[in-house]
Amino acid sequence: MDQYPDTSRRITDAAATSTGDRLDAYVDRYATRTHGMTASEVRSLFSVASRPEVVSLAGGMPNISGLPMDVVGSLLTELVDKRGLTAMQYGSGQGDALLREQICEIMQTAGIHGHPDDVTVTVGSQQALDLVTRIFIDPGDVILAEAPSYVGALSTFRSYQADVVHIEMDDDGLVPDRLREAIQSVTDSGRRIKFLYTIPNYHNPAGVTLPPERRTEILEICQQADVLIIEDDPYGLLGFDTDCPRALRADDDERVIYLGSFSKTFAPGFRVGWTLAPHAVREKLVLAAESSVLCPPAFSQMAVSQYLVGHDWRGQVKAFREMYRERRDAMLEALDDLMPEGTHWTRPTGGFYVWLTLPSGLDAKAMLPRAVTNRVAYVPGTAFYADGFGSRSMRLSYCYPTPERIREGIRRLAQVVEQEMELRAAFGASATSQRPGLDAPAPNQS
Amino acid sequence: MDQYPDTSRRITDAAATSTGDRLDAYVDRYATRTHGMTASEVRSLFSVASRPEVVSLAGGMPNISGLPMDVVGSLLTELVDKRGLTAMQYGSGQGDALLREQICEIMQTAGIHGHPDDVTVTVGSQQALDLVTRIFIDPGDVILAEAPSYVGALSTFRSYQADVVHIEMDDDGLVPDRLREAIQSVTDSGRRIKFLYTIPNYHNPAGVTLPPERRTEILEICQQADVLIIEDDPYGLLGFDTDCPRALRADDDERVIYLGSFSKTFAPGFRVGWTLAPHAVREKLVLAAESSVLCPPAFSQMAVSQYLVGHDWRGQVKAFREMYRERRDAMLEALDDLMPEGTHWTRPTGGFYVWLTLPSGLDAKAMLPRAVTNRVAYVPGTAFYADGFGSRSMRLSYCYPTPERIREGIRRLAQVVEQEMELRAAFGASATSQRPGLDAPAPNQS
Repeated sequence: MDQYPDTSRRITDAAATSTGDRLDAYVDRYATRTHGMTASEVRSLFSVASRPEVVSLAGGMPNISGLPMDVVGSLLTELVDKRGLTAMQYGSGQGDALLREQICEIMQTAGIHGHPDDVTVTVGSQQALDLVTRIFIDPGDVILAEAPSYVGALSTFRSYQADVVHIEMDDDGLVPDRLREAIQSVTDSGRRIKFLYTIPNYHNPAGVTLPPERRTEILEICQQADVLIIEDDPYGLLGFDTDCPRALRADDDERVIYLGSFSKTFAPGFRVGWTLAPHAVREKLVLAAESSVLCPPAFSQMAVSQYLVGHDWRGQVKAFREMYRERRDAMLEALDDLMPEGTHWTRPTGGFYVWLTLPSGLDAKAMLPRAVTNRVAYVPGTAFYADGFGSRSMRLSYCYPTPERIREGIRRLAQVVEQEMELRAAFGASATSQRPGLDAPAPNQS
Repeated sequence: MDQYPDTSRRITDAAATSTGDRLDAYVDRYATRTHGMTASEVRSLFSVASRPEVVSLAGGMPNISGLPMDVVGSLLTELVDKRGLTAMQYGSGQGDALLREQICEIMQTAGIHGHPDDVTVTVGSQQALDLVTRIFIDPGDVILAEAPSYVGALSTFRSYQADVVHIEMDDDGLVPDRLREAIQSVTDSGRRIKFLYTIPNYHNPAGVTLPPERRTEILEICQQADVLIIEDDPYGLLGFDTDCPRALRADDDERVIYLGSFSKTFAPGFRVGWTLAPHAVREKLVLAAESSVLCPPAFSQMAVSQYLVGHDWRGQVKAFREMYRERRDAMLEALDDLMPEGTHWTRPTGGFYVWLTLPSGLDAKAMLPRAVTNRVAYVPGTAFYADGFGSRSMRLSYCYPTPERIREGIRRLAQVVEQEMELRAAFGASATSQRPGLDAPAPNQS
């Protein structure tokens, strides 16, 4: 592709003095926040992991093949037929009123009694993260987040120049004592904590869930220290053993901003998520949303709304849960059977992910090319840390491949780990590690 | 609505000491940028202007009643049936590859030869504005914009704490000499100009269009001064006399970032817009988009793509043009017939808007309540200025009401203007003006 054949109009020759095939003539023009925007490690994997011979345990795409396409098709035809002029027009910046009522009904499953006027519909849960960060974060403000944390949230926090302080987790999620210590330490250093970002249910990427007593304790800690909580809950309805756990927001309607999504319970292609926030915050969120996209797509919202009314969506969620449970079982069984000693992993009770930690001295990022050569892919743990930790760990997704493919993927992965261990035993650390062994602080199960 | 009955958990009692019914307990927590986020004057009008007895010349909603709903319905059924799993799944952050090719084909109408790899699909053109501002603007950076300018752009610029410097227009749009002077003056003051934001075709709100020779001159000025150009072109295909004017981007593929939209040529409810940007900038835009919404809705994009393939969309645009031309004619005829002397207005050759300037001494914002009482609504000119100007002007939209309603609306508006003039003649300026007569610098036609 010969895009810029005419150099006579090339911007600022001075800026074009750097080397490399692809000069960025605009480099001296970008905003400071742009320096933190880099392609994520998850993204650079996509091209490799999508080759058919590779078993990808990397992606987080929900498996929506069980959706009844004929039902969806006729619901959409009905929507265009009966309310097409509204569905294809500009809508409210806050989102469709009927959908906001339906969202409140859904949140009752998590014990939340919210008012539709406090709900803002967003372009997926990612936009909710963006808007919350936009209204609260000045450069240098501190966000507390689990270690590890959701890669998309970290990317948003970075783009607003937030300073992320990670907090250790164990098999039961965020450790309250570590939260106390982190608040104390940040406060002592004179910095401002703007909020705690947490995924209490079936954590991405850690695969752990906060038990009820810890939720109470974490709420109390944040109340005492006057810290807001962003509760991100895309997987709450996808538990394998229990119904949706009680949300933090169910017990505090002033301190907790709750984020939800239809991406995992229906389909991500409509990009419909939401926030439930105290009224004053909700007003700011809507202003930020309007300045960001004017309004979320009316068509998407009304399609979701129509689906919720016209289909047994709870039955469909139940079917999703069964499917994901079977895949989770396949992954855990294969890990139990095949992984060499010294490897540890979490045992998720819902959601999409297992967090695996390699034997001491191994580096998941350095190992990835060898894994891909052996036709299996994962996301290295470093993607889920803002501070360079996580090199000994990886995220394994069981949401998308079939149980057979999952077993085969874990078999290939176990081979690679064993080879790495042999290499390391024979040649020492330099053979397997790119860096001097920064271990993830948590969750390292033994 | 008794939302917060339990005050025991109310955040920071100290912050709750301010008066007012609606305390914002979070006021000391917001980011600095949030202070610039206020409800626009357009928005506060919506509830009033939507009453059926009011002729609203305020809104900018396209009239999509001419769309063939049966065709759209069957195209969507086909989409779900044949490519439902892709349309309802996560997609690329840059946008659907086929749609990006179709966008390049459409842009050829404006003389643009772009490559699909340089296109980023956005959640409406508003998100394109947000992303461009996000990657270029640090607080205090200067954006040059026409006087008046698009209210949604100004809101986005404000949310990134940009400093907007307005440039005078006349009946032929942006005045090149004023642009030269503004660049000189900003540069002399030691501030950094990040870009010129311009709407060359059928300007919102001014209703004017840049002639070809001015486009060349403006490009040359920006090339000499090394200023980037954001060319916002939602209305280019909606000209009444000519086909799409040649874009600035057609003559400079390195300095101009072009923004397009399907909201006016198809339907806004899918929220599909785009940017065409130099490759290095496009890479940053995609990273910013991913951190903002992960990816634009796949369903929306594929719906638009399907419509472009499966329907005579150019014929539909032609029908839209005829409809809007008839409404433009109705408005101009009514203005010519009914408006009192001393009132001036632009004569748009495309798009949705007439910019009307009241006789000297009248204040469009102060007059609005009296206009609404007389059952007609408009947007006061101040909404389209970042600096408090525009009080003598207003934006009149002819896109949505029928020609009959437009004539009736202008009749009612003319009555109100006449009454204001009589009041002013009898009691002086204080009777009609809220402020000491800040007149809009342009476009004030005589």
